Amino acid sequence: MATETYGKNINVDEMLEWFASFGQSDSRGVTRLLYSSAWIEAQQALKEKMEEMGLTPTFDRVGNLFGKLQGTEQNTKTILVGSHIDTVVNGGKYDGAYGIAAGLIATHRLFQQYGLPKKTIEVVSLCEEEGSRFPFTFWGSKNITGKCNLNDIKTLTDSEGISFLDAMKRSGFDPSSYAPPVRKDLACFIELHIEQGKILETTNNSLGMVSHIVGQRRFDIEIIGESNHAGTTPMHLRKDAMNTASYLISYINAKAKEIDPQLVATVGKLLATPNVVNVIAGEVKMTLDVRHHKEEVLDHFCAELYSYIDRLADEEGLDISISKWMDAKPIKMDESLTALAETIAAEKQLPFQAIVSGAGHDAQIFAEYCPTSLIFVPSKNGISHSPLEFTKKEDLENGVEILTSLLHRLAY
Amino acid sequence: MATETYGKNINVDEMLEWFASFGQSDSRGVTRLLYSSAWIEAQQALKEKMEEMGLTPTFDRVGNLFGKLQGTEQNTKTILVGSHIDTVVNGGKYDGAYGIAAGLIATHRLFQQYGLPKKTIEVVSLCEEEGSRFPFTFWGSKNITGKCNLNDIKTLTDSEGISFLDAMKRSGFDPSSYAPPVRKDLACFIELHIEQGKILETTNNSLGMVSHIVGQRRFDIEIIGESNHAGTTPMHLRKDAMNTASYLISYINAKAKEIDPQLVATVGKLLATPNVVNVIAGEVKMTLDVRHHKEEVLDHFCAELYSYIDRLADEEGLDISISKWMDAKPIKMDESLTALAETIAAEKQLPFQAIVSGAGHDAQIFAEYCPTSLIFVPSKNGISHSPLEFTKKEDLENGVEILTSLLHRLAY
Repeated sequence: MATETYGKNINVDEMLEWFASFGQSDSRGVTRLLYSSAWIEAQQALKEKMEEMGLTPTFDRVGNLFGKLQGTEQNTKTILVGSHIDTVVNGGKYDGAYGIAAGLIATHRLFQQYGLPKKTIEVVSLCEEEGSRFPFTFWGSKNITGKCNLNDIKTLTDSEGISFLDAMKRSGFDPSSYAPPVRKDLACFIELHIEQGKILETTNNSLGMVSHIVGQRRFDIEIIGESNHAGTTPMHLRKDAMNTASYLISYINAKAKEIDPQLVATVGKLLATPNVVNVIAGEVKMTLDVRHHKEEVLDHFCAELYSYIDRLADEEGLDISISKWMDAKPIKMDESLTALAETIAAEKQLPFQAIVSGAGHDAQIFAEYCPTSLIFVPSKNGISHSPLEFTKKEDLENGVEILTSLLHRLAY
Repeated sequence: MATETYGKNINVDEMLEWFASFGQSDSRGVTRLLYSSAWIEAQQALKEKMEEMGLTPTFDRVGNLFGKLQGTEQNTKTILVGSHIDTVVNGGKYDGAYGIAAGLIATHRLFQQYGLPKKTIEVVSLCEEEGSRFPFTFWGSKNITGKCNLNDIKTLTDSEGISFLDAMKRSGFDPSSYAPPVRKDLACFIELHIEQGKILETTNNSLGMVSHIVGQRRFDIEIIGESNHAGTTPMHLRKDAMNTASYLISYINAKAKEIDPQLVATVGKLLATPNVVNVIAGEVKMTLDVRHHKEEVLDHFCAELYSYIDRLADEEGLDISISKWMDAKPIKMDESLTALAETIAAEKQLPFQAIVSGAGHDAQIFAEYCPTSLIFVPSKNGISHSPLEFTKKEDLENGVEILTSLLHRLAY
């Protein structure tokens, strides 16, 4: 096997521990926000690590770090593999970091075993995906694919009032020397990531081959009833916004289950007014997050919901308004790249399944730009964005093994 | 008629405007908290008003103000009539004040028309009912009926850290000279009050003869599910505390309607955790307020609820706990006193109905101590504890007329 030599000595689990030492927080979590000192240290250390591992490191103008293993063929396009280096506040060790570590280890093993590839491989540590410091997501992958530039972030500030541009400059990426760091030479993008859900754990599969990243719609719903005395207002004279909210939440959950097993709908946030024990709630504001990988399923759900809201408002004699403030389309991964990963998994007798990603990933930005594959490994209890995030060593290694073979077939 | 002479010149509506001048707030509301300067001014002005109207005023040791019209018979017990002078923060002009104004005007009219009564009448301005400054309700009526004393309030402070005892002393009622101001000479207590609901408005009745004041139980309910990613957790793997809360709120409302038309149940307060758009709520805390005038109806509702909660927790696989932190028993008003008021209303062809009070009143404290009657006049839109509190002049006057006749039958 390709992975039986020197490379095997680099342990993916240990590399993730090393990554987590940059930005370690009190509760054994990791906080590595874009352009912060922990982020700078991590990218600089990673640059050195790439050199040690035989890769040629380069930063682009926004802080994406590439480690190149030059292909022997002339004018080949680059096979890009990696994920993001930034984390949420007090996040885990695996989200993002695993995709970078896996890319590094796989590339290194191939180099040790087979020498230089025919086609160029680059491992990328994308500077930003989470949107945890500034209200902007996918800053790294959107720059590489030409989907954003400096204009998009020039008015943004973080929670401490520091501007995006200042933070960029202080970390060594002076916006005054910005030029769009678009990569026109990409053959494909491959990302390994933890699932952040518990489907693989439930089905006992080692790998999830992502077919789609879901489309996502988000809504604000406002119910206006009548605030009244909880003691002196008989039930039949009430316009109780909380009770009406309860009908709506129950409906949303039941309808999502009914329409499609992969449709998810969540009322995560609810604020009642005046929100006191002895007063009927006159107003409820709540959010709705709906996701599916097929636009027509989202359309169907929303049409049913709008019609129910009209009926409910009518029956209960309250005002209900709903407004959509996010509508991200579903994204399909590359079929042949994914099929190749599945063939390899079958050959290696690693149990895998097709899976839909319910969360957003850099892969969705690349997928509209070049052939892209996203592969999941299991997450214990589906937990992520938490110090409790955990994936077993064996599962981490299975992902690296698949990636190594995939790169071998593509690049050698 | 008894009310056709001098007394008619004192207009109840104008007296309420005069009352509202003590503690007037910006938004045309009234704030007259116990022992505050607005409260002191109001009680002192009322003392002078009583003197002008031919009554003998006295304060007791806690600040209850009595205006006496001495009866001509020897050793008669006192017919007490009135309500409370304190208000909530930014309350209305009618709550409490109306019962005092009505008592004053009725007594004055009788005195003008018929001279001294056989039995002593006293109009009382009770010092405190709302519990709006200190966390203690019915301080006035509970002192008069021997249900509380200085020990009950000695550790209490208001929101600014001023102790109950200090506030009492500063307003001229030095706790060091406290003795329980229990009145053992009460023949009965009669209270006029605005309904604070919209039953009378809905039925088009001028008067509500209160048969009972409801019993009240309050609960905290806690639902513990699992907080998870809104995108990566399929519906069938969720333990969504918000969804379970929605079933429970719907059940509570439906069951209250089903069991008895006079049963009310309110989930007024709800707090979800973490309460963000893209995370399934792992925890919901909510309150429940249940009221009815029959203990057995409250028992029945609670038994059904407890059993439903067990089934629901079981079906949904979540933990649900419920804890009762208030249990006030239902109180019955005096039947013969109420029947007399009804007879008078019928004679005067004033439309009335029996009614249950869903809110607490001083009458519930007196009812366990002496024969007590509570009479309601309509509240526009059922609104109270708000500057929007309003009762029509005609309705206010109907209440005064009934009270005048009732006192005439009882005292002359």
